[in-house]
Amino acid sequence: MASAPSASGEDSLIARYFRPLATDPGAFDLNDDAAALKPTGDDIVVTTDAIVEGVHFLPDDPPDTIARKALRVNLSDLAAKGAVPAGFVLTLALRNADEAWLTAFAAALGEDAKEFGCPLLGGDTVSTPGPLMISITAFGRLPAGRMVHRSGAKPGDRVVVTGTIGDAALGLAVLKGGKVHAALSDADARDRLISRYRVPQPRVGLAEIVREYASAAMDVSDGLAGDLTKLCAVSGVSAVIDLDSIPLSDAALDLLLRGVVGIETLIAGGDDYEILCTVADDRVAAFAQAAERAGVASSSIGVVVAGRAVPKFLDKQGREIALKRLSYSHF
Amino acid sequence: MASAPSASGEDSLIARYFRPLATDPGAFDLNDDAAALKPTGDDIVVTTDAIVEGVHFLPDDPPDTIARKALRVNLSDLAAKGAVPAGFVLTLALRNADEAWLTAFAAALGEDAKEFGCPLLGGDTVSTPGPLMISITAFGRLPAGRMVHRSGAKPGDRVVVTGTIGDAALGLAVLKGGKVHAALSDADARDRLISRYRVPQPRVGLAEIVREYASAAMDVSDGLAGDLTKLCAVSGVSAVIDLDSIPLSDAALDLLLRGVVGIETLIAGGDDYEILCTVADDRVAAFAQAAERAGVASSSIGVVVAGRAVPKFLDKQGREIALKRLSYSHF
Repeated sequence: MASAPSASGEDSLIARYFRPLATDPGAFDLNDDAAALKPTGDDIVVTTDAIVEGVHFLPDDPPDTIARKALRVNLSDLAAKGAVPAGFVLTLALRNADEAWLTAFAAALGEDAKEFGCPLLGGDTVSTPGPLMISITAFGRLPAGRMVHRSGAKPGDRVVVTGTIGDAALGLAVLKGGKVHAALSDADARDRLISRYRVPQPRVGLAEIVREYASAAMDVSDGLAGDLTKLCAVSGVSAVIDLDSIPLSDAALDLLLRGVVGIETLIAGGDDYEILCTVADDRVAAFAQAAERAGVASSSIGVVVAGRAVPKFLDKQGREIALKRLSYSHF
Repeated sequence: MASAPSASGEDSLIARYFRPLATDPGAFDLNDDAAALKPTGDDIVVTTDAIVEGVHFLPDDPPDTIARKALRVNLSDLAAKGAVPAGFVLTLALRNADEAWLTAFAAALGEDAKEFGCPLLGGDTVSTPGPLMISITAFGRLPAGRMVHRSGAKPGDRVVVTGTIGDAALGLAVLKGGKVHAALSDADARDRLISRYRVPQPRVGLAEIVREYASAAMDVSDGLAGDLTKLCAVSGVSAVIDLDSIPLSDAALDLLLRGVVGIETLIAGGDDYEILCTVADDRVAAFAQAAERAGVASSSIGVVVAGRAVPKFLDKQGREIALKRLSYSHF
């Protein structure tokens, strides 16, 4: 594509679509090669997550949901670490500069940036002959040394998860057609599940509460079972989970009870973007109340135990359920 | 690919290849969802640049040069802003987890991280059906408020550039075959140009000197002519450049004098990763001496003038040369 002598196509694309999102003074109106994060005495927490067309979202997903997902998967990480959003940088790899697509993408990204207090600080826009890819690095702040790690779980702690689990995996299954789609006659129920897949609800409002109460935390992105396994491994502990306590939406419970899906679909499916954390037994009630006040339901689903074994998942009768897979893996 | 019950393929890939690079305590051995940057009172400068197979590097470029280029294009930005490297996060989009490729990639990335004092802090590894893509967000530190902007150039300042210009564009031309390749019978000369394309030399050692002397600065990544045009636009000035003063390597000068390439190929070609800056006239000599002591040659190539026009490029006789294009543009 021809470029005007005074600005490259990339620069005018950035100016047109993304400058309005760069509300932080440290973004320098996207007129520079870099952004600056001011020192406040806080630690700056850094997380990076990319989403790829055909892998993390579907080729015909709307641009606004793609934008929201790209930012929110990062905000979810910040929340789980106890950090309050401070800004993000965006790498956008595009096949072409489609005006309608970019307008919708940038508008939704801007809305989320505003809603979650996480302004655009900078970025890079590149052309690719391949799938659309959005890589975001997000920054959060928290008092020095107070990041909540995966590594702090102790035997006796309760295992707690927010929201409901498995809806996003079901939403993806609906979008792919097949038996889950066929089993759901209610269009509203289908749309709710699809929305969970396309637009995660990062628990940004829980950051301080996680910091206050959790001994260890992470967000559930690759599947509850696999993510809990990771948390336990890093903490050097194991866990026993009561499958019946895992919070499910009405639709998920219905599909499970009707045998359309197994529990593995729900807890190894990924894309939940809920917070998984461990909380000392005598503080679980206070955590739940604080989360409730912040508008987020939480459920105690099991207990941390000593040992190095993969967590056990027990059914109503206390029998261990063997899972064939624990999570989504790219490789 | 099957994943072991205790760790996903992605996690073991990260542990195996990238954990050795995560030497900073704030990387938490890549065992967490996020990294932490400690407050030091400095500003944290953030830059992000992605490279895409077939766009920024060639499909058969060796993995070690791809790794070095991915990091160095970001280190070049930090240096131009006057920031000292502090670390980086990596997003790697791979078609498959090829052991030999990843081993060579990670080893070279680790060497560069060590050489430039810029440890790996975290990352995300995703699968893609498309071209290989590496997106890096790099962090640097500098005293609060001291980032060198594109916007500070003033009429009367000299325009200064480090190293030599156009070699990377020639290196790409050699790799593509054609007339540049045919015109260079000396294999060593070809290899030197290819090396300039594949492995930029970021001017990390000049960060403090740029901060001390430059009124405005940026790195030359998309072509000297276009990048100078951007710097002038943001500074609200114009410039007059003496084409004969633009520093060229022996090979570039030879190709230019033999008419194999025109000046446009050299100054609108991109991938130089030199520093372009403006320096007050009475400080240019001191800047050049300081840069020389840091092992980097610099050349004064023109002067900043009032006005908003696109910079003028004058030949030996003082005639303006019209450029058809100023830089590489993705769109």
